[in-house]
Amino acid sequence: MVQNKSVIFNEVPVGEPVVGKTLKVVTEEFNLDQNIPEGSAIVKTLTLSLDPYQRGRMRPEEIKSYVPAFSIGKPIDNAGVARVIKSNSADLKENDLVYGALPFSEYAVISSKGFSNVTNSPASPQTLVGALGMPGRTAFASLEALVELKKGEAIFVSAASGAVGALVVQISKLKGLKVLASAGSDEKVKFCKEIGADHAFNYKTSDTREEIKKFGPINIFYDNVGGSTLEAVLDTIEDFGRIIACGAISQYNATEAYGIKNTFQIVAKKLTIKGFIVFYLQNQPSKNPEFSGKTIEDEFLAIMPKLVTDGSIKVKEHVYDGLDSTPVAFNDLLKGNNFGKVVIKLE
Amino acid sequence: MVQNKSVIFNEVPVGEPVVGKTLKVVTEEFNLDQNIPEGSAIVKTLTLSLDPYQRGRMRPEEIKSYVPAFSIGKPIDNAGVARVIKSNSADLKENDLVYGALPFSEYAVISSKGFSNVTNSPASPQTLVGALGMPGRTAFASLEALVELKKGEAIFVSAASGAVGALVVQISKLKGLKVLASAGSDEKVKFCKEIGADHAFNYKTSDTREEIKKFGPINIFYDNVGGSTLEAVLDTIEDFGRIIACGAISQYNATEAYGIKNTFQIVAKKLTIKGFIVFYLQNQPSKNPEFSGKTIEDEFLAIMPKLVTDGSIKVKEHVYDGLDSTPVAFNDLLKGNNFGKVVIKLE
Repeated sequence: MVQNKSVIFNEVPVGEPVVGKTLKVVTEEFNLDQNIPEGSAIVKTLTLSLDPYQRGRMRPEEIKSYVPAFSIGKPIDNAGVARVIKSNSADLKENDLVYGALPFSEYAVISSKGFSNVTNSPASPQTLVGALGMPGRTAFASLEALVELKKGEAIFVSAASGAVGALVVQISKLKGLKVLASAGSDEKVKFCKEIGADHAFNYKTSDTREEIKKFGPINIFYDNVGGSTLEAVLDTIEDFGRIIACGAISQYNATEAYGIKNTFQIVAKKLTIKGFIVFYLQNQPSKNPEFSGKTIEDEFLAIMPKLVTDGSIKVKEHVYDGLDSTPVAFNDLLKGNNFGKVVIKLE
Repeated sequence: MVQNKSVIFNEVPVGEPVVGKTLKVVTEEFNLDQNIPEGSAIVKTLTLSLDPYQRGRMRPEEIKSYVPAFSIGKPIDNAGVARVIKSNSADLKENDLVYGALPFSEYAVISSKGFSNVTNSPASPQTLVGALGMPGRTAFASLEALVELKKGEAIFVSAASGAVGALVVQISKLKGLKVLASAGSDEKVKFCKEIGADHAFNYKTSDTREEIKKFGPINIFYDNVGGSTLEAVLDTIEDFGRIIACGAISQYNATEAYGIKNTFQIVAKKLTIKGFIVFYLQNQPSKNPEFSGKTIEDEFLAIMPKLVTDGSIKVKEHVYDGLDSTPVAFNDLLKGNNFGKVVIKLE
């Protein structure tokens, strides 16, 4: 028996989650010597990803949405990397590293099926849940599948220093686009420029409409924040503009959502807006002739790990230590207090 | 010299146009014996179209938008049909009928270039500015170019008894779709059913969300009204739903636009929203294999006049008599007091 710490979904939050109430850290016994079914393994968690979409899972279970609700009294879960302690699966051996959906617990029994073996990856566990995990796939697959990136066009990326945004900035630059970036602090703005944004601004101290006008015509908007930023873009984007709706972090804690008043611009400017969830994009056929017959996921796996490990794409991770830090880290993430991809490091 | 009555744009309205203030009917002298440049003609106007988009032209000229502003002190204009009184153009002879953008005046000098000769059309001047004019092209081209209509899918059409909506309902039925329609009176609802809607409801006395739920899954929304109807659809449309943003008549007179709070559904439901203006769609290549190499406009001209004149597609026109009726007719249109395509008949 060992002590097994977990982060439990304790209560549905109204507005901002309350530290110590919404999520609770509890400790239970865990039997390392238990018998486990064939095809499964006992793992020790190394790193867990925290992502804004998890706020949408903190709702009453009876409310349907695009991702399952967390269950009250059970650990929250998300992508993570773990080390195999004991295996009853032909696919895994002791000390292997696996990547997949893990409970926020130090120890867990997993089925090998839902996990990929990342033992030989040159990337760190943090990067495996960030630039090379779900956020990386989100940026890569959406830019490939939802919008044609034409050299010389301009893209505006909101939350551009975040897990997805920073990759959108860099992939767009690699494709020859001009990039305008917004972020929530001067330090983040500086980082956006370091990773290649042609211009970046602090949306808290600058007016988004004015910054777009100063920058010049924007053709594409990669929307991670929704709300008033989306409204400002509808007013300033070019005719035939394309908007990728990836997220709306400005709204996740809002008890009253922001009302967007200028949706008529969609008509007047002949805009196209596309929403998506990464999971259904990954298996779509690649549009890259070099990956003809393969999926976007195949293309991602062939391209991105190399670009990240050789430094062509820079990653910034905001590492929080230990499961105890999860409630504060999650609120930091929703408020933008993080700087880079948020990960919880357990050891 | 004859008396020439015109409808003048007199004042930029705030909210609803004010009869007698926003538009003013004036009479001036017009010289029927004047010399006119080569390639031009003097015409007597027979029928003029009134369309909701004209509200957007009633703005200060310095505010840019997708259509030019009307000029204060000058006649408003829109599509119409006129008879040639005197011609200095090889393309036109006396008594020919022409279709094109006309000032709201009884008499005018036009350049033959911007007009098509409709002398031999079997359709009435009213239908030539409605189902076979801009509204007809709007419905036809947008359904063809912006959305793939799959047999068995369901489409919801708002303002479904209107100039565009009634055609969207009927084209969708011809393509094998299930159609849900909303309109603003029980009489209009009855008409929607007569032209083929599987179900229709009065949005003033029924709840749009509830009606959609009762009807069953909708895959496509043809949006003529914007505002709270669009919001209700975002909450109820199926995953991967497609929305054609054609207009937002609920907002044109609003001094404070409706704030749409649930745009996050675009992400959660992986929606695609496309705005458009008919003029740029007409010249796009037809997707119909029978019209390979031709434009959507070619296809429209080959298909729609036949369907309308043989009665396969029914049209309903709301005819107002004389230019004097224009200010009232336009307010009626924006308030939904009209029933069918609004036309002003001069003789």
